Amino acid sequence: MNWKYKIDSPVETLDEIHDIAKKLVEENGPYRVVLAVGQDLLSLSGLNMGREQGLVEPILVGHPRRINETLDELGFRQQDWMIYSEKDYYNATQKAARLVMSGMGDILMRGKLLARDFFKALFDHKLELRKSGSFWSNVVILEIDELDRLIYLTDPALVAHTDIPGRLKIIQNATYLASFLGNDEPKISLLAAVESVTPGMPVSLEEAAISKMSERGQFPEGVVVDGPLSLDLSINPEAVKKKKMDSPVAGRADILVVNNVHIGNVLFKSLVTLCGAKSASTIIGPEFPIVLTSRSESPQNILYSLALSIMMVGDKD
Amino acid sequence: MNWKYKIDSPVETLDEIHDIAKKLVEENGPYRVVLAVGQDLLSLSGLNMGREQGLVEPILVGHPRRINETLDELGFRQQDWMIYSEKDYYNATQKAARLVMSGMGDILMRGKLLARDFFKALFDHKLELRKSGSFWSNVVILEIDELDRLIYLTDPALVAHTDIPGRLKIIQNATYLASFLGNDEPKISLLAAVESVTPGMPVSLEEAAISKMSERGQFPEGVVVDGPLSLDLSINPEAVKKKKMDSPVAGRADILVVNNVHIGNVLFKSLVTLCGAKSASTIIGPEFPIVLTSRSESPQNILYSLALSIMMVGDKD
Repeated sequence: MNWKYKIDSPVETLDEIHDIAKKLVEENGPYRVVLAVGQDLLSLSGLNMGREQGLVEPILVGHPRRINETLDELGFRQQDWMIYSEKDYYNATQKAARLVMSGMGDILMRGKLLARDFFKALFDHKLELRKSGSFWSNVVILEIDELDRLIYLTDPALVAHTDIPGRLKIIQNATYLASFLGNDEPKISLLAAVESVTPGMPVSLEEAAISKMSERGQFPEGVVVDGPLSLDLSINPEAVKKKKMDSPVAGRADILVVNNVHIGNVLFKSLVTLCGAKSASTIIGPEFPIVLTSRSESPQNILYSLALSIMMVGDKD
Repeated sequence: MNWKYKIDSPVETLDEIHDIAKKLVEENGPYRVVLAVGQDLLSLSGLNMGREQGLVEPILVGHPRRINETLDELGFRQQDWMIYSEKDYYNATQKAARLVMSGMGDILMRGKLLARDFFKALFDHKLELRKSGSFWSNVVILEIDELDRLIYLTDPALVAHTDIPGRLKIIQNATYLASFLGNDEPKISLLAAVESVTPGMPVSLEEAAISKMSERGQFPEGVVVDGPLSLDLSINPEAVKKKKMDSPVAGRADILVVNNVHIGNVLFKSLVTLCGAKSASTIIGPEFPIVLTSRSESPQNILYSLALSIMMVGDKD
């Protein structure tokens, strides 16, 4: 990862990311997004919105007949789309990745296949995409009406379950993204059902250990981690006041860290599906941006993910 | 458990529960709620609302000086409240339970102590409250603007983690509550991050096994269970249509079952804190209703829990 975009002031809304992307496009032209297994209704809707705004130039890799059927279903003209034929989803994903690795594309996007299968194809040793020692995780940026800041949630999709070393890497990745968007001193909450450290709940013990590392100054300067914390104590200052809790993170968390993908996924979907949260999702770890959309997202949210990816690519040389 | 209230038509909103409670009170007078460790701001606010509506008659067990300080803080007159002195929280909880067991109270409520400590005191063998073989679990009923029905979530507070037999008991308890409220044919979703059965995710395998039991007719007639299902596929018919998923539960779930308390708690708090969901919470298993409030709930939500408890007590002989 070597994202070069230099930010002037911290990003506080997803629309700001959208605006930055527009400015980058003015200077560099549209960014090429390669969709792996392109026959995906939602991805194509989002990409179409992005293209209409001049932000992206989609390249579809997948089953040509199915892609054309999907384009028909959406009422899009087939001849407007660049399509590489590759019927097998595993091969399509690797081909799409190779297009980006070779510089023919700027951004990789998942189409109509399971996240698991998508990453399996990308992690294939022959592809040499994931460098040894690099750790990939998914971070979702959420804009929620009730809150005055962006919330980073990790990991709702990619990393199934983590022990302490894994959790530290997840934190590092999310911190990297927050810093890229201008927040160098994120407050990080380790989510649990309780705020008391409970011997019978291993997760709470692990979280306590990690937050003690923060007290000991083992995280980069400015980064503060605390846990276990419940969701309300993480983000709701009122709840913290009622509880009379003394914590440098409680009520003001920027980054929410869960210990397994089920918690992250259910929280993400509750916020997007039932609370109308806006979102942008990305993978931290690879050398180029990867857009991993979710069914529950709207085309507008996919557009935010594309805009974030454009920022990550930055100025093209 | 032997709840006798006979319902005319299925309950569809929490206000209906409130109305039923009012009707019961008209015939039976107010119901006596015993608050264990009474020095709790939120519980006292909720109880005060209930009393002003004539629904409940609170009895506080706890540290008398601290209770009085809390009443002062709320601007309530000390002489309006019945207080049993018991400074120790463990003893206060047991005393409160004994008051209800002996018929001096109708409903038990948790005050200012951790849920863990509250249940530890109640599960003490000497108290003989939890019958051998009985299984207690917490069910929260949620009313969410986006949905046209009540959602039952279990377990966000009491049962930390369950294997398959535990999950079946949790399902049974929630089904019992749904049936009590007039829904004899609940659709039950086993929540996960994925809907595909994934060998690397033990939870998804367990959920698959339980939903197969449902296919085999091993649940009571009318009860349908399916999983693993993500949150959006559980409740959002649009997502189900997009995914072209064939499931008797997807998009129409009444009961959401999580496999550990962290997922349940985070989901519950996200809905109540960020989505403005209304809620009523109860414990299924004991012989009398137990109100287990959460910090993130409003006094109005506590009132719903009290109303539900009144329904569970039913007509007094």
